[in-house]
Amino acid sequence: MTSNPVFIPGPSNIPERLRRAIDIETRDHRSPDFPALIGPVLDDLRTVFRTERGQVLLFPSTGTGGWEAALSNTLSPGDRVLLGRYGTFSQKWAEMCRQHGLDVEIVDAPWGAGAPAAAFETILAADRTHSIKAVLVTHNETATGVVSDIAAVRRALDDAAHPALLLVDCVSSLASMPFEMDAWGIDVAITASQKGFMLPTGLAILAMSPKAIVAMQAAGLPRSFFDFTAMLASNHSGGFPYTPPVPLIVGLRESLAMLSEEGLERVFARHARIAGGVRAAVAAWGMSLCARQPQLYSDTVSTVLLPPGADGRALIDHVYRAYGVSFGVGLGELDGRAFRIGHLGMLTDVAMLGGLAAIEMAMADVGIPVPLGAGVAAAQDHYRMTRGTALKIAA
Amino acid sequence: MTSNPVFIPGPSNIPERLRRAIDIETRDHRSPDFPALIGPVLDDLRTVFRTERGQVLLFPSTGTGGWEAALSNTLSPGDRVLLGRYGTFSQKWAEMCRQHGLDVEIVDAPWGAGAPAAAFETILAADRTHSIKAVLVTHNETATGVVSDIAAVRRALDDAAHPALLLVDCVSSLASMPFEMDAWGIDVAITASQKGFMLPTGLAILAMSPKAIVAMQAAGLPRSFFDFTAMLASNHSGGFPYTPPVPLIVGLRESLAMLSEEGLERVFARHARIAGGVRAAVAAWGMSLCARQPQLYSDTVSTVLLPPGADGRALIDHVYRAYGVSFGVGLGELDGRAFRIGHLGMLTDVAMLGGLAAIEMAMADVGIPVPLGAGVAAAQDHYRMTRGTALKIAA
Amino acid sequence: MTSNPVFIPGPSNIPERLRRAIDIETRDHRSPDFPALIGPVLDDLRTVFRTERGQVLLFPSTGTGGWEAALSNTLSPGDRVLLGRYGTFSQKWAEMCRQHGLDVEIVDAPWGAGAPAAAFETILAADRTHSIKAVLVTHNETATGVVSDIAAVRRALDDAAHPALLLVDCVSSLASMPFEMDAWGIDVAITASQKGFMLPTGLAILAMSPKAIVAMQAAGLPRSFFDFTAMLASNHSGGFPYTPPVPLIVGLRESLAMLSEEGLERVFARHARIAGGVRAAVAAWGMSLCARQPQLYSDTVSTVLLPPGADGRALIDHVYRAYGVSFGVGLGELDGRAFRIGHLGMLTDVAMLGGLAAIEMAMADVGIPVPLGAGVAAAQDHYRMTRGTALKIAA
Amino acid sequence: MTSNPVFIPGPSNIPERLRRAIDIETRDHRSPDFPALIGPVLDDLRTVFRTERGQVLLFPSTGTGGWEAALSNTLSPGDRVLLGRYGTFSQKWAEMCRQHGLDVEIVDAPWGAGAPAAAFETILAADRTHSIKAVLVTHNETATGVVSDIAAVRRALDDAAHPALLLVDCVSSLASMPFEMDAWGIDVAITASQKGFMLPTGLAILAMSPKAIVAMQAAGLPRSFFDFTAMLASNHSGGFPYTPPVPLIVGLRESLAMLSEEGLERVFARHARIAGGVRAAVAAWGMSLCARQPQLYSDTVSTVLLPPGADGRALIDHVYRAYGVSFGVGLGELDGRAFRIGHLGMLTDVAMLGGLAAIEMAMADVGIPVPLGAGVAAAQDHYRMTRGTALKIAA
Repeated sequence: MTSNPVFIPGPSNIPERLRRAIDIETRDHRSPDFPALIGPVLDDLRTVFRTERGQVLLFPSTGTGGWEAALSNTLSPGDRVLLGRYGTFSQKWAEMCRQHGLDVEIVDAPWGAGAPAAAFETILAADRTHSIKAVLVTHNETATGVVSDIAAVRRALDDAAHPALLLVDCVSSLASMPFEMDAWGIDVAITASQKGFMLPTGLAILAMSPKAIVAMQAAGLPRSFFDFTAMLASNHSGGFPYTPPVPLIVGLRESLAMLSEEGLERVFARHARIAGGVRAAVAAWGMSLCARQPQLYSDTVSTVLLPPGADGRALIDHVYRAYGVSFGVGLGELDGRAFRIGHLGMLTDVAMLGGLAAIEMAMADVGIPVPLGAGVAAAQDHYRMTRGTALKIAA
Repeated sequence: MTSNPVFIPGPSNIPERLRRAIDIETRDHRSPDFPALIGPVLDDLRTVFRTERGQVLLFPSTGTGGWEAALSNTLSPGDRVLLGRYGTFSQKWAEMCRQHGLDVEIVDAPWGAGAPAAAFETILAADRTHSIKAVLVTHNETATGVVSDIAAVRRALDDAAHPALLLVDCVSSLASMPFEMDAWGIDVAITASQKGFMLPTGLAILAMSPKAIVAMQAAGLPRSFFDFTAMLASNHSGGFPYTPPVPLIVGLRESLAMLSEEGLERVFARHARIAGGVRAAVAAWGMSLCARQPQLYSDTVSTVLLPPGADGRALIDHVYRAYGVSFGVGLGELDGRAFRIGHLGMLTDVAMLGGLAAIEMAMADVGIPVPLGAGVAAAQDHYRMTRGTALKIAA
Repeated sequence: MTSNPVFIPGPSNIPERLRRAIDIETRDHRSPDFPALIGPVLDDLRTVFRTERGQVLLFPSTGTGGWEAALSNTLSPGDRVLLGRYGTFSQKWAEMCRQHGLDVEIVDAPWGAGAPAAAFETILAADRTHSIKAVLVTHNETATGVVSDIAAVRRALDDAAHPALLLVDCVSSLASMPFEMDAWGIDVAITASQKGFMLPTGLAILAMSPKAIVAMQAAGLPRSFFDFTAMLASNHSGGFPYTPPVPLIVGLRESLAMLSEEGLERVFARHARIAGGVRAAVAAWGMSLCARQPQLYSDTVSTVLLPPGADGRALIDHVYRAYGVSFGVGLGELDGRAFRIGHLGMLTDVAMLGGLAAIEMAMADVGIPVPLGAGVAAAQDHYRMTRGTALKIAA
Repeated sequence: MTSNPVFIPGPSNIPERLRRAIDIETRDHRSPDFPALIGPVLDDLRTVFRTERGQVLLFPSTGTGGWEAALSNTLSPGDRVLLGRYGTFSQKWAEMCRQHGLDVEIVDAPWGAGAPAAAFETILAADRTHSIKAVLVTHNETATGVVSDIAAVRRALDDAAHPALLLVDCVSSLASMPFEMDAWGIDVAITASQKGFMLPTGLAILAMSPKAIVAMQAAGLPRSFFDFTAMLASNHSGGFPYTPPVPLIVGLRESLAMLSEEGLERVFARHARIAGGVRAAVAAWGMSLCARQPQLYSDTVSTVLLPPGADGRALIDHVYRAYGVSFGVGLGELDGRAFRIGHLGMLTDVAMLGGLAAIEMAMADVGIPVPLGAGVAAAQDHYRMTRGTALKIAA
């Protein structure tokens, strides 16, 4: 412990165990040891995505690279896609679609709401020619702290009997909140190393369904670095199509071991418990979340709406400079009007209380009326009452 | 950040910078590089002890080993020594004197009081034959959270015109609270690596005055591992009399660099600020410290007296098991009736607030009446009001 | 020292100092500290590329990603490009051009020769309409151990008065061998973190000339993750267009500090000295290099031609399994007929001698006739005679 | 791999796995986790000492501290002890006996010979009153590279039916060469962390027999830091009598796991194999070892006698400054006339070959006639022929 943990919605704090795991000497990725590393990692990732039929791919990249990989391996120039927009990250994905020459139809939902499944269904049902090739949904919108109902989107596709692919960004939800690739009929799921996997930034992690693999054969967007075909072929023979980031893959193996030892259900319960304390604090401050209903509350990030007149950017800048603690600013239309508390990964309840205490001090400093200790007390109460529900992970 | 920081009065939390510094490959201690390491470290330590005339010695050991080294290098079997006892650690040092065949005269002070300078003066003045060879004082009694007035002990010796050596245990004060070896006329000062220097346990660090070096020539207690003469001779030629713990010495060099970059005055101010928040919380809980008066309050450890009926051991066990946070139990006559909060080294205000929140939850859990958030709020108020007074250290 | 260093042509061995630098807690990339990190790193990289006019860009990716970034930011679908092919990596870049719809004209040179500047000039001179938009050259072909004369390629362009862009892959040469972006008139230079910068895999590092920036405006290939415009804009305001791999950027800062402290000229001399010992050993074995002439010899990788009948794959597999040492196999048309010795980065002469001793044992084991110790002795002689010419870097 | 491994007879090179193990955050040594750490470590150490009846003790100290602990816990002032002297370290132990007021009777053997069991027997047989309280023997004399026959010393005691304790320094042999505490009837065995256990310096590790524990009750030498009684009592309840060096104890747990995974017999075979290559090189150089007969050859350190006129100190200084490699100088009566090669711990054959190549270059540089590559070739031959006899340990 030197500095304080971060309370940003990713990259999350890296557990000691993972820091030790990735701090390794150079290993030859063409040696016989590499196949023994990459194979089991790809296999075990399927457990986390909750897929039996899917295949997993890793790219030395980020979630943004993962978005691109998902598009360019399944779609062709001019393809029509349907995208739900309800935050900064869904907006960025929409822009990327345009950059790659896709015909993106955006369905807006209010910030604070989730994926517009009903609107999707209407559009899909009307698309008799099946001109829509893919539906793109952000599972957990990191800008608003909203988790969407992907099963409802699946039902929209099914009810419309529409064959479009379902592409889901689960960057800030996988390995932190329930996610069901097979059960929700997802065709491409996209995440990254620096959120629920608690590793440094540097890996895009994707899973694709058999249906997506079929679509890949016809996908006409140009691709090379992110080409799935070359990656699958190399992986199949225990290799990588170019130099792999071995330390992060070793780290991912260890992260998977940690998740497996704790059990995904307990990992989710731990996130829900930490998030519950944060939400109790927000209520005690007399503020509300951007997320409109409890079932939309994200367990990895909370976007807190500030009272009128408060300056969210100044608050976040102040808490960093005065107390050395990082929180997230409001993004996009919430710029200045909100701030975000990241609470994913290996955060303890005690660390979270320190974070809440810090933001309380900072709010008081910048003139946002909040009684010192009030949010902390509410969270303490929550953590006391729920401490039997989640087990600790050893470092 | 994986687990929580510790709030024990040592070993203190190790800053990242020092963890990186000590994590090194094996280096040959007989190479030309070793003299370039050990010499400056010994020199720079004099700045921290605040001595120009003294010499510094390092032993691969602990503070307890440092106590023994101080005794065996300056005294002879049967020598009469005067020792102030007002806590567990001064008591242990007294026992050690007996084990080494010294004639130890104990001057008791109440736990919660400091070194009994007045009683010392009376005894010293009465010792016309100067049969007392040394006065032994614990600067910061880690059991009670009391810092003693060493200058007053010095005056007691001076006023009695007594030539006894002054041996001072500064294990839990040096590099955290003001300490003045030369100005206070200290002959042997004893500390260790795992407190204010923020390193792992493993080094006893001593400074001795020219007068102590003279006494050393006649000191008849047997010694070999802790022999100052051999150590000084080896160090003088850039060596060590046996295998030195190179990583810790490299770490000590880095620790000295950190202290120097921040400046000792700011280091002390930072400790005082963190401690002030803890004391504000204790007051808000309606409890009191073992230390009887503000000028006795330690800035590295606070010993909190629990209300009647509370079980201090159960509290500390519970906060560890339920929330993963380490505090210190009450020791000796405070066993069960108190607990201790360590607040030395690189702790941030935010980490301290997390610690206070944890112990509040635990007190509530075990039935000690304390309003959740009350101590935290008092500490938040203190930290907000004083945040301009201390600068942060970069990791 | 646990395992042996690797003798592959990258990833190179990571110095302790860089391992310590990248092993950090999570830092908020939106905090005020990030601009203070990224800005100087981008600036200092220009010194290594030897460019005053160029701009540097970093992507969380690999050299392969860097190739794609170079293409997609400067070219449009159907653009004609000229590419020299004389090894596996130049071949792979040619394939990538095709994947992105470029009209690639390949000029083959024998494996063991370098970039065909004369042939380029003929073609360029004949291209009166300037239909060729870019010339693509691999500076150091990692498959053959050949370093090409980029200045000659520049002269070919100049002599033909041709405006095509000059794109150069310096993945396995930059920061190890002389490279002159401005003097050689290079428009895009592409390298990665895991070679001369001695870091783990994970960063593509590019520099682009003002002329390339102009070309970028018109470049029609789709791009988003690798988009230079968004990256330059973000970097300009101290940010990153998506989550940056902070640990590797911190490591790059430290790598740049190491290179600067040693001085690039000495870094090059050190590589030349280590390589000279390897070449002396190869000669003592009675074998020859793939590189046909001394001026083509790479100082980062030597491709050794095996005697007829020898099985290069079996040799490399054996030396790994029997002695735990990694070398490179022959690639492409050299598959089975050669092996490669990587000698870049922080390798010491003593480590290199251990590597040569290992491959000698392995050759003897698999029946390739070589007198034990012969190559080692030749390299020892070289290292003894040249030890004054290169200084050691402290860890 | 940055710098070169060391070839000194300790501290040995620290394996990556152990570096990772000891690089930990501060842990509370009074928490419930500490008993779960210390207990199994003490238990498992008995397997390495090969004792079922003995008890193991750890002190934050060094081998020198272990010597003192062995003396002060089993002997009384004026006690007569018998000590075999045949090198620097046995000489130092003899001096320590005198410093603690013991009546030490030294039995000299030539440097290069081992413990004088026959002379011991004569003296012991003549000691009808059993005035001799202990026999002190250095198992592996690090100055001469001689391993002594402790079983023969045991027989000398038995044949003389003498009840003296047998105290054995196994600092540079335990966990590297066969050692049998129970079978050899050893009463106190003394080692340290930085040799066969491959950890940093900082732990004295002792094992004592039931007979030694009985002797302890009557032992009159003063002791406190090294007091066995307090240590055993604390350990018994899962504690430590003062602040323990937790990181090193955690490291020792991991070291024990590594030894157990490999198996002690294979660890010994691995050391014998590496040492065999060194001895082959020495023979190829036309030089001889200090150790007079093959059965005296140490598998952890070889002391090489230089030809007349050679300056051993200059050689060792030169190889460090010119090639960055550490070897040991000749000590005591071998000062200047010999040098020492340490080959214990995790050294690979390839690393050892690099070391031999380095010292060959240095010998040539300083004018000691040795054909470059000759020793390396002899060692290569040895390592090739024996590579099936020892398995590699994974890092």
